[in-house]
Amino acid sequence: MFESAELGHTIAKAVYKKEVPPLREALLDAQLEVVEKAEFPVIILVNGVEGAGKGETVNLLNEWMDPRHIETHAFGPMSEDERMHPEMWRFWRRLPKKGKVGIFFGSWYSEPILKRVEGTLRKGDLEDRIEQIVRLERMLANDGVLFVKFWFHVSKKAQRARFHELESDPKTSWRVSPEDWKRAEKYEEFRKVCARVLRQTSTPEAPWTVVEGTDARYRSLTVGKVLLETMRARLDSPLPKRTGRVPPSVPAIDKLYLLRTLDMTQRVEEKHYDVELERLQGKLNKLSRNSRFSKASVVCMFEGWDAAGKGGAIRRITGALDARQYHVTPIAAPTEDERAQPYLWRFWRHLPPKGRFTIYDRSWYGRVLVERVEGFAPPEDWMRAYGEINDFEEQLVQNDVILVKFWLHITKEEQLKRFKEREKTGFKRFKITADDWRNREKWESYEVAACDMVDRTSTEIAKWTLVEANDKHHARIKTLKVLTDAIEKAID
Amino acid sequence: MFESAELGHTIAKAVYKKEVPPLREALLDAQLEVVEKAEFPVIILVNGVEGAGKGETVNLLNEWMDPRHIETHAFGPMSEDERMHPEMWRFWRRLPKKGKVGIFFGSWYSEPILKRVEGTLRKGDLEDRIEQIVRLERMLANDGVLFVKFWFHVSKKAQRARFHELESDPKTSWRVSPEDWKRAEKYEEFRKVCARVLRQTSTPEAPWTVVEGTDARYRSLTVGKVLLETMRARLDSPLPKRTGRVPPSVPAIDKLYLLRTLDMTQRVEEKHYDVELERLQGKLNKLSRNSRFSKASVVCMFEGWDAAGKGGAIRRITGALDARQYHVTPIAAPTEDERAQPYLWRFWRHLPPKGRFTIYDRSWYGRVLVERVEGFAPPEDWMRAYGEINDFEEQLVQNDVILVKFWLHITKEEQLKRFKEREKTGFKRFKITADDWRNREKWESYEVAACDMVDRTSTEIAKWTLVEANDKHHARIKTLKVLTDAIEKAID
Repeated sequence: MFESAELGHTIAKAVYKKEVPPLREALLDAQLEVVEKAEFPVIILVNGVEGAGKGETVNLLNEWMDPRHIETHAFGPMSEDERMHPEMWRFWRRLPKKGKVGIFFGSWYSEPILKRVEGTLRKGDLEDRIEQIVRLERMLANDGVLFVKFWFHVSKKAQRARFHELESDPKTSWRVSPEDWKRAEKYEEFRKVCARVLRQTSTPEAPWTVVEGTDARYRSLTVGKVLLETMRARLDSPLPKRTGRVPPSVPAIDKLYLLRTLDMTQRVEEKHYDVELERLQGKLNKLSRNSRFSKASVVCMFEGWDAAGKGGAIRRITGALDARQYHVTPIAAPTEDERAQPYLWRFWRHLPPKGRFTIYDRSWYGRVLVERVEGFAPPEDWMRAYGEINDFEEQLVQNDVILVKFWLHITKEEQLKRFKEREKTGFKRFKITADDWRNREKWESYEVAACDMVDRTSTEIAKWTLVEANDKHHARIKTLKVLTDAIEKAID
Repeated sequence: MFESAELGHTIAKAVYKKEVPPLREALLDAQLEVVEKAEFPVIILVNGVEGAGKGETVNLLNEWMDPRHIETHAFGPMSEDERMHPEMWRFWRRLPKKGKVGIFFGSWYSEPILKRVEGTLRKGDLEDRIEQIVRLERMLANDGVLFVKFWFHVSKKAQRARFHELESDPKTSWRVSPEDWKRAEKYEEFRKVCARVLRQTSTPEAPWTVVEGTDARYRSLTVGKVLLETMRARLDSPLPKRTGRVPPSVPAIDKLYLLRTLDMTQRVEEKHYDVELERLQGKLNKLSRNSRFSKASVVCMFEGWDAAGKGGAIRRITGALDARQYHVTPIAAPTEDERAQPYLWRFWRHLPPKGRFTIYDRSWYGRVLVERVEGFAPPEDWMRAYGEINDFEEQLVQNDVILVKFWLHITKEEQLKRFKEREKTGFKRFKITADDWRNREKWESYEVAACDMVDRTSTEIAKWTLVEANDKHHARIKTLKVLTDAIEKAID
C-alpha cells in the first residue's frame, strides 16, 4: 500500500513555480463551479502518519481555494457532548452542504485505527468498523457526495529525520510534541494496521490516494492535481440521472396484507384505561429516573395513517416525563438546509444524548412511504433506503439507543369517521387538509408500501410494533406498555 | 406581585367546556397566521413555583396548537457543552425562527433566581443579571420577537396541599420528587426574590403575566386567552415600519478622520519578518497549549478594506495552531435560516467553547459598515446595533472570552494596486469582483462608517486594534503580536 510513497519523490523548485499558478487557477474554477451548481458536496479526508504534512495540506487547501466555501473540521478526542451520542453523530453533524467543500482532518478512520494499534480494539471489531465505514461512504456517495481521500505517508526514517530537524531549531521545536514521539515508536504496527484498513476501504466510490509527504512541493502539487481531477471528472460528467429501473415489487397476489391481519376490534374500557394509564406513566417516569437509564437513550418513532392518533399517543408518553428529558421532533417537508444534505442527516441531527428521549412524529420511513408512493424519490433511492435505514438503526442500537418503532393502524372506515369529525370541530380543523383526502385516495398504494416497509425493516435488532388504533385507549396503552417494557428490558 | 394569584381563582367545569372550543379555534387561527406570515417568532416563557402546573401548561399548549410549529425547550442544569460557552449561548441557539413558537420551560430567569435563593449570587450581581436580561429582551423585541412571559404561582399552603394530595395516591406519587420538597422549604425566600425580579423585568416590550396555578381550568383558560390576545394584537397591528428618522451623523467637518492619522509607511523587512513570524507563531502555539488557556477562549475578528490582507493574516495565525483548536468563520450574506433569526444569532452560533479559537473573517460589524452604507439596514437598526454589539461583546468578555478586534487598513492607492494585481493573476481573480469595484467608489462613506464604528465600539472592555496594512509583513506581525499579548495578559 505504501511502497510507492517511500521512493523519495521530489519536485524541483522551478517546476513547482511553473506549475502552481495554472493549477491554482484551475482549482478555483472547479471550486466555483461546485459552488454555483450546488449539486453535490466535496468531502476531503486528510489522514496519515505524523510529520507527513497533514496540517500544512489543510492550510494549503484553504489558501489555494476560496476559503469562504470550505469548512475545515478537525476531529480529536470526543467532547462530552459527542460521547453522549452515537459514534458517527459527530461526523454527520459536520457534513458539508451541497456546493461546499468539507475538509475532515482526522475522520471516521482515526479512532478505530488508533484503538487497534493500542490493542483496545479486537481484530474482528475492526473488521466490523471497516464494514460500517464502507457502507456509510457508499451511502453518502449514492447521495452525491464526492470523496477525495488523502493518506499522507512518510517512511519511518524520514519521519524521525523530520522530527529531529524541527527540534534542532528553537524556533520550530514547538512543532514536535511528546505525543508525536510516542506515536512514532509504534510506527511499524501503525503501518500494518493502516495498510489493511486502506486496502479494504479503497472502494470505487471513495478510493484512497496515498501521498508521500516528505517533499512539500511534491506533496502539494500531488494533492492539488488529484483534487482538481476528481472535481473535474464529476463536473464534466455528472452522475447519470436515476433511470427508475429496479425489479418490480409485487404485492401479495391474494391481497392478504400483513396490516389486514390485525385484530382491529381490540378495546380498552374507560375505567380500566384511567388506571392503566396512571400505572404505566408512573412506571415510565420511574424508569426515566433510573440511574442505569443515564447510559442509554430512547428513540421512539411513530408512523401510521393520517388521523391514527399519533399526537395523542405521544402526549401520553411525554406527560410522564420531565420536560427537560425529551424532545418531540415532528417531521415535515425538509427545509432548505435539510435538502442540501443527505437524506438521513436531519434524523441524525435530532438524536438524543444519553439519558434522554427523542420522539419522532413521522420519521426516516417517509422515504419508503410518502416519497415512494408520491414519486418524490426515484425507485432506486427508496429501494436502497431499506438497507440504509437498517444500517442507521443498527448503529443506534449498537450505541445503546433503545429504539421503538410504532405503526399506528386504523381501518379505512375509521379514518373516514375521524376526518369528518375533524372537519366538524373548529379546533381540530387544522388537522385535516386537502393532502389528507388525497392521501386517502391512495390508501391501497400506501398499504402496500407500509407492508413492504415492515417486511424489509422489522429486523431482529429493531422490530416494528403494529398498533391496532381504532380504539384510542387501546393504542395509547399498548404504545406505553411496549415502550416501558423495552426500556425495562434494556436497562435490566 | 403575587397577591392576585393567591385569591383562589377557579373556573366552573361548565364554563370551561363552553369556552375552550372557540378559544382553541381562535388560537389555531392565530398560530396559522403567525406561521404563514413568518414575520416574527413567538417566545413563551414558562416559569414559576413547583406544583403550579408548568409542565401541564407545556403539554396543554402542544395540544391546543399545531405542535409541528412549536419547539419546546426545557432548560435544566447546563450540559458540559453549555458550560464551555458563554452563559446565554444555550438560549441563543434555541431561539425559534420567524413563524415558529418557542416554549422555553425554564429560561434565563431560572438560574439567577435559584442562585440568589441559595445565596451563591450576591444582590449586586443579581441586579447586573437583571439589567442584562432586560437589554437582551429589548434587543430581541426590537428584532420582532413577540414575548409571552408566564409566571405560575401558588400559595405556600396550596403548594403543600397539592404535594400531599399527589403523594397520597401511589399512582401519582411519582409526580412529587424529593427536590420538590426541598425547594418548598425555601418558599418564602424564593417568593421574595422572584417578586423583585418580576417587577424589574416586566417591561413594556415583554411584560409578565402571573397565573394562579391551583385550579387547572382557570390556569389553562388564562394561559390560552393571554396567549391569544398577545398574538392577535401583533397580528392585527404589526410593528410600524422603520421611519428612518435618527439624528444625523455628522463626520468630522475638517475631515481629520481617525483612519487618516495612521502611519501608513510602517514596514517589516523580509529577513526580520521570517524570524519574527516563527518566534510569534511559536509563542502563540505555546500559549494555546498552556493549561490555563483551557479556561478561556479566543474570538479574533477581522474587518478592513477589500484586499487589505485579512486572509493572509488569518493564515499566519492558524498556521501556528492545532487544527482541532480553531475554526475560521467567513461571514457572507446570511442564509435562509440566518435571515429567520435575530441579527446576532449567527455569531452566537459560532462562538468557540473554552480552550478554542474562532476567527471571524468579517463579523457582526457588517451591520454598521456594509449594511449602513448600502442601506440594507434602516438607520434605527444600525444605530441601535452599536449598543447591541457592545452588550454582546461585554457578555463575551465577562465569560472569559479573549476578544481581539482588528481593522486592517490600507490606503486607497494601495487598494487600487492590489485590485489590478489580482485581476492580472489567474488564481487571484476570484478575489476581485464587481462588488469590490463598486464598494471602492463608496470609499468615503465606508471611511466615515468605519471611523464611527471604532469610536462607538472601542470600549474599555473590547478595544479595536487598527492595523496599518499597506505592508503585509507589518500587518501580519502586528496582528500576531497583539493577539499573543492579549492571550498572555488574560491567562497570566
